[in-house]
Amino acid sequence: MIGRLNHVAIAVKDIEAASRLYRETLGADVSDPTDQPEHGVTVVFVNLPNTKIEFLQPLGENSPIAKFLEKNADGGIHHVCYEVDDIIAARDRLKAAGARVLGDGDPRIGAHGKPVLFLHPKDFNGTLVELEQA
Amino acid sequence: MIGRLNHVAIAVKDIEAASRLYRETLGADVSDPTDQPEHGVTVVFVNLPNTKIEFLQPLGENSPIAKFLEKNADGGIHHVCYEVDDIIAARDRLKAAGARVLGDGDPRIGAHGKPVLFLHPKDFNGTLVELEQA
Repeated sequence: MIGRLNHVAIAVKDIEAASRLYRETLGADVSDPTDQPEHGVTVVFVNLPNTKIEFLQPLGENSPIAKFLEKNADGGIHHVCYEVDDIIAARDRLKAAGARVLGDGDPRIGAHGKPVLFLHPKDFNGTLVELEQA
Repeated sequence: MIGRLNHVAIAVKDIEAASRLYRETLGADVSDPTDQPEHGVTVVFVNLPNTKIEFLQPLGENSPIAKFLEKNADGGIHHVCYEVDDIIAARDRLKAAGARVLGDGDPRIGAHGKPVLFLHPKDFNGTLVELEQA
């Protein structure tokens, strides 16, 4: 069912510093920051040859990553995102297997303009898993 | 400098349960477990089309992931591994930039039989980073 690893998301407090670090010290291809007010984050893409790292910095009130950064002052890996062909079929399979889908269980439009779901970390080895219909 | 994302490592307490979850519920291609006593872990590979997820379960005394699992009872993402062409050149560039290399700074042979280094999470957005000479 799951396909490519679409991205690994790393929550950061200072996205400019994280971008400099990956661009200058690690020599990676790093995008400019993009504000996504509808998702409460500023995003930077680190384009690796086979996948992406995404830096997420809180934007505005009630950012979904604010609490994570309170607990992880240095930042940290926030989630992994796997691609699926059919997010409704994926959701139904997961629910039938007893896995908890976060929110109301309906896909919403994610940061890439595609339908996404998040799965409960307690059901997935302490790892927040995003599924994106690719 | 950094190339492909070689893998994302997820520490787990029960590698059989994690394997079943990814094989049956997420429908992924999951390897059989392999003991790596010299690294203090049992490893399973989840082969995605573009990269790998590696499950790590503690093996023996003094496993390098035992402490992580004490703090993260459900498991969790332990590190990311980026490929580099020349690990000595990478190390020297990182040290010149003030980044801390763990251990004595000399590459050791990692779980894939290739030279690896680990970088200090405090210097990399709270993320433990492994570099592997590909």
